[in-house]
Amino acid sequence: MAIDKYFTTRRTIRKYSNRAVDIEEIKAMLTAASHAPTTGNMQLYSAVISIDEDIRKQLSPCHFNQPAAVGAPVLITFCADFNRFIKWCEASDAKHGFNNFQSFMSAVLDTTIFAQQFVTIAEMSGLGCCYLGTTTYNATDIANVLHLAPMVVPITTISLGYPEDMSEVSERIPVEGFIHLDTYHDYTGEQTKALYSSIEQREDSKRFIAENGKQTLAQVFTDVRYPRHNNELFSKLYRDFITAAGFPL
Amino acid sequence: MAIDKYFTTRRTIRKYSNRAVDIEEIKAMLTAASHAPTTGNMQLYSAVISIDEDIRKQLSPCHFNQPAAVGAPVLITFCADFNRFIKWCEASDAKHGFNNFQSFMSAVLDTTIFAQQFVTIAEMSGLGCCYLGTTTYNATDIANVLHLAPMVVPITTISLGYPEDMSEVSERIPVEGFIHLDTYHDYTGEQTKALYSSIEQREDSKRFIAENGKQTLAQVFTDVRYPRHNNELFSKLYRDFITAAGFPL
Repeated sequence: MAIDKYFTTRRTIRKYSNRAVDIEEIKAMLTAASHAPTTGNMQLYSAVISIDEDIRKQLSPCHFNQPAAVGAPVLITFCADFNRFIKWCEASDAKHGFNNFQSFMSAVLDTTIFAQQFVTIAEMSGLGCCYLGTTTYNATDIANVLHLAPMVVPITTISLGYPEDMSEVSERIPVEGFIHLDTYHDYTGEQTKALYSSIEQREDSKRFIAENGKQTLAQVFTDVRYPRHNNELFSKLYRDFITAAGFPL
Repeated sequence: MAIDKYFTTRRTIRKYSNRAVDIEEIKAMLTAASHAPTTGNMQLYSAVISIDEDIRKQLSPCHFNQPAAVGAPVLITFCADFNRFIKWCEASDAKHGFNNFQSFMSAVLDTTIFAQQFVTIAEMSGLGCCYLGTTTYNATDIANVLHLAPMVVPITTISLGYPEDMSEVSERIPVEGFIHLDTYHDYTGEQTKALYSSIEQREDSKRFIAENGKQTLAQVFTDVRYPRHNNELFSKLYRDFITAAGFPL
């Protein structure tokens, strides 16, 4: 068994060159990605491809104007989409029962699998990608810009372009940290410290801690990057959006 | 740009040969998959690998004894996991605010991206995989069998083995059916009928309709495969499980 070198050397790209991305190539890659697994072959997703500069400018603040969003020639918003499937059901004398949490989760999985298959294909083709996690923060604004229909929920956005800067390959924790044989083996605090020690010792980690006036790397995550008040605010906004879109949680 | 032929010829495998799968190869593939993108490099997932026959027998009914689950030499349950990260925060004097819907969604995306990257690597290595959507139906039973900790939620399961039967490549709807340029373009019923017409004309589709005594293929989805009462029952069960696990929805 030989694992393609791509998988262990891939990196997220946040700076893109001026080279345009051909829409026909994007379509070919999305077509190939649609062969990824999907719940009951329902393909519960849509990809909204934004190349037009005006639309991208409207999307930028939805992603807090992060450089990967502002500087990308293409943004693709991957949406959980039951709208198309329900319209087909209604046109086929079939009464659906998809306005619930399980159906939403099926669509979330389909959408994420499809997005990741697209990322793999794009990266293997020499393009650079970055997932924009801000998509679940500002779903209402994104839906307004993209004119999304009911039963369509933004799940994630990929910024796409030819790489300008090759960032470093990100370090991950050792495999023993995230696999469990037969049953789950819980962690002690000491064990988790050992798993993250190599990442904690990195110069960039030490810089993050110092720049943010913190004592530990974990505090950068809990106090600066993902603080409780943000998590709770954006939880409420996203839950309200999903419920209003037609999936009561 | 050449897209690897694998992406458009892959198929889900539900029947496996007797050939054992080497645990070291699984570990190597999961290690490679962990280089897939992840929210803020938090890796909010765990993979529980079940090879032991007794554990697999306990898991089978959680997946309604479907042949892909019963006949597979390996089941891997991919879980959204904030437990490890929180334990590290607590061991690092960091107060987390991750018990909410946004954090859960971040972990769902991380887990699904990781699972799909694993599937791609495994399939490219000659293994066969099948996603078991039943994982979100019977999360409580699965968590009991696998002794999952709080803040750990089963998201999906991959059954894994060397292929016995090569199934057909599944037909998907045309790419125009799931991409939208710049903004979302809603569908008419007629348009959706056109998108699904090729799939509706297939012999296997006609057989599903006849076997189930239905008039249309859509009715097989709404009345037989994903009926409202099942969707609503399993929505409640999964929501209750997730809330009890530590993510109030």
